[in-house]
Amino acid sequence: MILYDYKRAPNPRRVRIFLAEKNINIEIRNVDLMNQENIKEDFLKINPLGTVPFLQIEDGIGIAESIAICRYFEEKYPEPALMGKDPIEKAQIEMWQRLIEFKGIFPAGEAFRNKAEGFKDRAVAGPVKIEQIPELIERGEILINYFFKFINARLSKSEYVGGKSFSIADISAYIAIDFASWIKLVPDESHGSLNEWLEKIKLRDSINA
Amino acid sequence: MILYDYKRAPNPRRVRIFLAEKNINIEIRNVDLMNQENIKEDFLKINPLGTVPFLQIEDGIGIAESIAICRYFEEKYPEPALMGKDPIEKAQIEMWQRLIEFKGIFPAGEAFRNKAEGFKDRAVAGPVKIEQIPELIERGEILINYFFKFINARLSKSEYVGGKSFSIADISAYIAIDFASWIKLVPDESHGSLNEWLEKIKLRDSINA
Repeated sequence: MILYDYKRAPNPRRVRIFLAEKNINIEIRNVDLMNQENIKEDFLKINPLGTVPFLQIEDGIGIAESIAICRYFEEKYPEPALMGKDPIEKAQIEMWQRLIEFKGIFPAGEAFRNKAEGFKDRAVAGPVKIEQIPELIERGEILINYFFKFINARLSKSEYVGGKSFSIADISAYIAIDFASWIKLVPDESHGSLNEWLEKIKLRDSINA
Repeated sequence: MILYDYKRAPNPRRVRIFLAEKNINIEIRNVDLMNQENIKEDFLKINPLGTVPFLQIEDGIGIAESIAICRYFEEKYPEPALMGKDPIEKAQIEMWQRLIEFKGIFPAGEAFRNKAEGFKDRAVAGPVKIEQIPELIERGEILINYFFKFINARLSKSEYVGGKSFSIADISAYIAIDFASWIKLVPDESHGSLNEWLEKIKLRDSINA
């Protein structure tokens, strides 16, 4: 089993933190996105989507998409549970995980990809050439500022994003906030509950995975 | 238990088809999105996000996000399995479900919301006022045309989107294609495998739920 990875990108990091929380050690191989190694023939034979993270379980059986990779490990090694223990918890954590992706990770990614020189005609992930749309930088910034408020309000009422214990929703939220800092947006002191939660999360051994 | 619903929107329909496949009957209440009933006080007390579908399990315990609602029912009533039976199947179905959302449902939604008169300053779902960006109509159309190719290629090698049996990935793909037709994009005869699959899916009793 091999995890194809890239240290500096947000999505592979979600998987590395998840594995560290579960204390799972597997072989990791780096795919150099900066040199577009992910869209070269050798890697496309492994993952035709050309994306990382990618988990090769065995020849011909692989999983793309960070959350789907986490699902595989959660089902295989349920403890400690990072995606909930019963139907209500599982659904609530999935709800929060998704809300954070849509309101945090995606707008940050959209602002970043429509701004960065390196993504000039690759503003959308995937094989289709898409030109940057400058208006999406501002739209992303507006949405990220709302996301800070949204997550702060949640954390003023809940110890962790998904409920009473640490879960994949916290991992996604941490990654969303880190990703937002790439476009220089950082929650200010008005977001007290969010900042307290951030301090707590940064103490976890897994977080620098 | 009450499911808050709106007949004409794509996301609530995913949940209704899922419930019909599992033969689950619950109370359903309509929230009139056209009259913005979803952002009026009465409904915001039930779901502060102002979104449908929303599943109220009991007082104070509710689930937003269609896929999270499906997860609740899948965990509670595992048969027939619509999200996979073992770790590999669960991960593969989640991967395909996500790929279809990102490559199909989202671009269709983006093209639609940035085009339709009724969403003039509400181009992004949620409480933040966001102006329409006309370039996103064309971007959405380009991405949808790629989505048709992408899903056709998958279905030329797999009986169903997620693997050997019908799953939530098929429900999402069907909804993506229906949503694309709102902006007048329909897979043509060059997408043979996709069209064959569509004919097969349309025969299911659940599909008009």
